Amino acid sequence: MASAMATAIRIIGIDPGLRRTGWGVIESAGNSLRFIAAGTIQSDDTCSLAERLCQLHDGLAAILQQFSPEEAAVEHTFVNVNPTSTLKLGQARGIALLVPARAGLAVAEYTPNAVKKAVIGVGHGDKKQIQMMVKVLMPKAVYNGADSADALAIAICHAHHRVVTRRISLAASS
Amino acid sequence: MASAMATAIRIIGIDPGLRRTGWGVIESAGNSLRFIAAGTIQSDDTCSLAERLCQLHDGLAAILQQFSPEEAAVEHTFVNVNPTSTLKLGQARGIALLVPARAGLAVAEYTPNAVKKAVIGVGHGDKKQIQMMVKVLMPKAVYNGADSADALAIAICHAHHRVVTRRISLAASS
Repeated sequence: MASAMATAIRIIGIDPGLRRTGWGVIESAGNSLRFIAAGTIQSDDTCSLAERLCQLHDGLAAILQQFSPEEAAVEHTFVNVNPTSTLKLGQARGIALLVPARAGLAVAEYTPNAVKKAVIGVGHGDKKQIQMMVKVLMPKAVYNGADSADALAIAICHAHHRVVTRRISLAASS
Repeated sequence: MASAMATAIRIIGIDPGLRRTGWGVIESAGNSLRFIAAGTIQSDDTCSLAERLCQLHDGLAAILQQFSPEEAAVEHTFVNVNPTSTLKLGQARGIALLVPARAGLAVAEYTPNAVKKAVIGVGHGDKKQIQMMVKVLMPKAVYNGADSADALAIAICHAHHRVVTRRISLAASS
């Protein structure tokens, strides 16, 4: 039990967006997952773009300060509605990658399909299914909407991937 | 002369890009422009995306520290080659907007057409024409490529626009 405690790692998942950036912090130890906190950082759309990016930056930096995650995972979202939306998303995503990296955290990236596969078990499914499975995997999880549920799903995806990667490297070295 | 000196303002122009971000610092006093410095910040494409964004952030923060500009202008570039390029540009652009805003600078945005109109006199023209006109407007300008010349052109565009805006507000209040 002491060794399982020792291998516990705290992960932040981030679902970037200019209007709303979802975040979720979990703890992973072996196969067990523990919910820590989740929420959204909103930017004020009456402000300039530069000011809105500052709001996302400061909000995310405060979350890292408060919950001290050790690793970060960001969704590699790909909204191909139109180039303006893609540019907007890119700008918010730049901040979502920058803030944990500047704090010294390793930042992993996962496609929406990888996240769905880790949480639902298949590479497709809607937001409702993700929210339901996050609740199944972490019954104590509390979140205020799709963005923070998605962020928790990204953190869960990273927890699964790092366990698999560790098992493969242990098998290779044994 | 003393009052013209008093109204001199130092402007940084930024041409964002993930691989290379161009920057140029000028001083504007009335209708006169003075070249201060220009260059490019490169990110290491063997590093992760998050690390590359950190490199752009740190490079840009060091330039602000060294040259203390009072206002910033960023090109509203719009590369519509494909969504992947647009997303990459957006991420770099997020950093280019964030760094001066966090340093307390007002950040203006200009479309490529506005920049060309300010520098060449018309809303179209190629990179060679921009570089030539930057040299005509500031004969002492030294730059190491198209990215830093573009950044100087963005700074010149902002210098022109702020003078025009000031004249309009003075005329309105007189």
